[in-house]
Amino acid sequence: MNHLLSTASLSTEEIKAILNQARSFLEGEQWKPAEQQFVANLFFEPSTRTKSSFEVAEKKLGLDVIPFDADFSSVLKGETLYDTVRTLESIGVNAVVIRHKTDHYFDELVGRVGIPVINAGDGCGHHPTQSLLDLLTIQQEFGDFKGIKVAIIGDVSHSRVARSNADALTRLGAKVVFSGPQEWFDETFLASGSYEDVDTAIETSDVVMLLRIQHERHDGDDSGISENYHQQFGLTIEREKRMKPGSIIMHPAPVNRNVEIADELVECSRSRIFTQMKNGVFVRMAVIKRALEKNKGGMQSVNTHKKWTIAN
Amino acid sequence: MNHLLSTASLSTEEIKAILNQARSFLEGEQWKPAEQQFVANLFFEPSTRTKSSFEVAEKKLGLDVIPFDADFSSVLKGETLYDTVRTLESIGVNAVVIRHKTDHYFDELVGRVGIPVINAGDGCGHHPTQSLLDLLTIQQEFGDFKGIKVAIIGDVSHSRVARSNADALTRLGAKVVFSGPQEWFDETFLASGSYEDVDTAIETSDVVMLLRIQHERHDGDDSGISENYHQQFGLTIEREKRMKPGSIIMHPAPVNRNVEIADELVECSRSRIFTQMKNGVFVRMAVIKRALEKNKGGMQSVNTHKKWTIAN
Amino acid sequence: MNHLLSTASLSTEEIKAILNQARSFLEGEQWKPAEQQFVANLFFEPSTRTKSSFEVAEKKLGLDVIPFDADFSSVLKGETLYDTVRTLESIGVNAVVIRHKTDHYFDELVGRVGIPVINAGDGCGHHPTQSLLDLLTIQQEFGDFKGIKVAIIGDVSHSRVARSNADALTRLGAKVVFSGPQEWFDETFLASGSYEDVDTAIETSDVVMLLRIQHERHDGDDSGISENYHQQFGLTIEREKRMKPGSIIMHPAPVNRNVEIADELVECSRSRIFTQMKNGVFVRMAVIKRALEKNKGGMQSVNTHKKWTIAN
Repeated sequence: MNHLLSTASLSTEEIKAILNQARSFLEGEQWKPAEQQFVANLFFEPSTRTKSSFEVAEKKLGLDVIPFDADFSSVLKGETLYDTVRTLESIGVNAVVIRHKTDHYFDELVGRVGIPVINAGDGCGHHPTQSLLDLLTIQQEFGDFKGIKVAIIGDVSHSRVARSNADALTRLGAKVVFSGPQEWFDETFLASGSYEDVDTAIETSDVVMLLRIQHERHDGDDSGISENYHQQFGLTIEREKRMKPGSIIMHPAPVNRNVEIADELVECSRSRIFTQMKNGVFVRMAVIKRALEKNKGGMQSVNTHKKWTIAN
Repeated sequence: MNHLLSTASLSTEEIKAILNQARSFLEGEQWKPAEQQFVANLFFEPSTRTKSSFEVAEKKLGLDVIPFDADFSSVLKGETLYDTVRTLESIGVNAVVIRHKTDHYFDELVGRVGIPVINAGDGCGHHPTQSLLDLLTIQQEFGDFKGIKVAIIGDVSHSRVARSNADALTRLGAKVVFSGPQEWFDETFLASGSYEDVDTAIETSDVVMLLRIQHERHDGDDSGISENYHQQFGLTIEREKRMKPGSIIMHPAPVNRNVEIADELVECSRSRIFTQMKNGVFVRMAVIKRALEKNKGGMQSVNTHKKWTIAN
Repeated sequence: MNHLLSTASLSTEEIKAILNQARSFLEGEQWKPAEQQFVANLFFEPSTRTKSSFEVAEKKLGLDVIPFDADFSSVLKGETLYDTVRTLESIGVNAVVIRHKTDHYFDELVGRVGIPVINAGDGCGHHPTQSLLDLLTIQQEFGDFKGIKVAIIGDVSHSRVARSNADALTRLGAKVVFSGPQEWFDETFLASGSYEDVDTAIETSDVVMLLRIQHERHDGDDSGISENYHQQFGLTIEREKRMKPGSIIMHPAPVNRNVEIADELVECSRSRIFTQMKNGVFVRMAVIKRALEKNKGGMQSVNTHKKWTIAN
């Protein structure tokens, strides 16, 4: 079963294979399943970019998308995620894409459902297709990850991609540093990269990867940090001028303009923010193809009549 | 006009024809309309299973589905159901599937709209595609309905399928008994089956059909019944052991686990709960095909220009 | 870039070309883009008719529609309309249809996004596809606009179509008069037509175009007007009897039955209300085709790598 749950669960070889496939799709490769296939996108949290991106990817692959409205589903009647996915499996859905606010929501699904689960974001945990599209954007720019320095700056602890990007980049040969408010950083990140002051990080990196402030995941009051954030930790017009030649700016979006990045820089020549979005479609095509291809020898179909056995 | 409003409105022959068509679809028959056809699913109540099942059925038939979001429609501006359906008819929709909390909502449509209405559940009244998928599941298991004993257990009076299933099963030659809390049963059901204590019903039936407790349709407080429900009326692990060899368990889902049925039994070898869901897709394909095929000689198209007549 | 923002921005020739194309589609012309194309419908206000009509039009053109739920999008995270549209552009969406409560919402998009915007209604401002379908319905009935008298009656000042219809009709050679409550009329409309008392307007016009009372756009209390509206300004059964032979009734819908028009007249032989809806699909097909065809030489694709330049 080719779930995609986290970047950490992918070997370096698997990551490279997905990026290769994504590049092929970007260059025009066509692939469609031999038979009609159905997919459902279960988004239990608001999303424009990721959900739409999956929709485009699915339709480019010729899949039929079954709409799912979390606010109008039987989840309101108390149905569990497991029962919801098993229901979709029973009616013929071949893969599910899920975003859910619970960390590791997929633990109740893996090994118990017969269709692949593609994680589109869980809690503060993982967001593997975002990581993969970040990697594709860097690879596209620099050809290789070896020797590249990447600065991950901002709301590190609430980000779904900081840890997994740092981990994957390190495995692929890049050097990672973190920056931003110390309150939003902790030592568990030191395994994949050291902490640098924001000016050094911005001036010496090939990739300046800004993170969105995840207000919606902050428990307490963070207004003290937010107010001066742009001057203290943001990519100001002044700081951009000191970036290395050839270096690029990334951000997972949606951008808080004039907070993480100056409004004028969002679409400047260094920015790859909208390129990241475009790349996301092709990464998702690759991930879905991988899921559907390996689904063949999966669990028993639900319609296979189980032999009756006497309970004892 | 081939509406599908209730099981009671179908003759035994029509029921059998729909089940035959559904089995053909299940075995791989393909059918698509000769021209592009549109369908809209108007769900004014939450649903995962039924709505998704209709979507899959529609897309397997190659139909184009026009999204309809009850929370975001002109119904908010006070538009009636009649005007909504006439609107959809005018823009080219060829059939509508409707779930609505009002009993007999379709009375304001029948004879007045020019496209078929497929009832996906009205109030506590009817849910004919659920009935038909239940019948298909029983037929699939036992080949025939004659001589089969079916126990319908639980929230009989608030169920959309208890009465219509009992009626159809009786007409098809099966024997029906009811069980569950006496408060949720009334003598109007005695026409199609007697009341039996739950242990006898479970031990002597070929089909144990459990009903979901429809909390959302209970007016008053039912916590007194719910609390001990599982021990008093539910399919406990203990009761399942006393079921007849070859007998099966059914439930329309979503299941209240450990209330109507023990958690461990939901996917046990006797359970046909997920098979019912799968069958639902093929029953809905059959029902939609029937509606679209008979729509040919229907009402005048809206675009036929009416001859002008002077009002007097 | 072939946006469609308002009727006023179209020349008489462009209006006629769109109506011609719409009539061709109505008569069965088929047109599909050579390659897979994506469209998104961004409705920030409730709508059944317009949204569904666009959906049918899009699917008749073979387009893939990317669902967008305003209540569940990143707009909730504070994303601007500009960033939302740029996001959709980046992931490969080829055109957007937008309804928004802000007058001239499109000013922040025009010249800044690389895909065409089709306005499906802004504030009290414009609703060009409604205007065009009104024009098509009149043309269909009378062949030409020259010499036709059109009465626009009702909530003139809050209507999205009163001004643009009056303007376009005048340009096309028709004569326009306004009627209804004086409070809902102002002298800025006098450029395209005079004010007439309701009885004269109804008795002497070829087209009686009733406007929906837009309660949701009235700031204060309008109950005083609404209460006696039907008798004072509505199309009563009595007034319809005094209409000219061959004259027709139009209304953009949804209708407030027995307010703007007597219930019995909504589907009378003079009424073109449901014909308007049908025509809407073909007008929208024409408008979308026009947008997609002219999009070819548009802005630079987002994936074209910008040459890196050093910020100075």
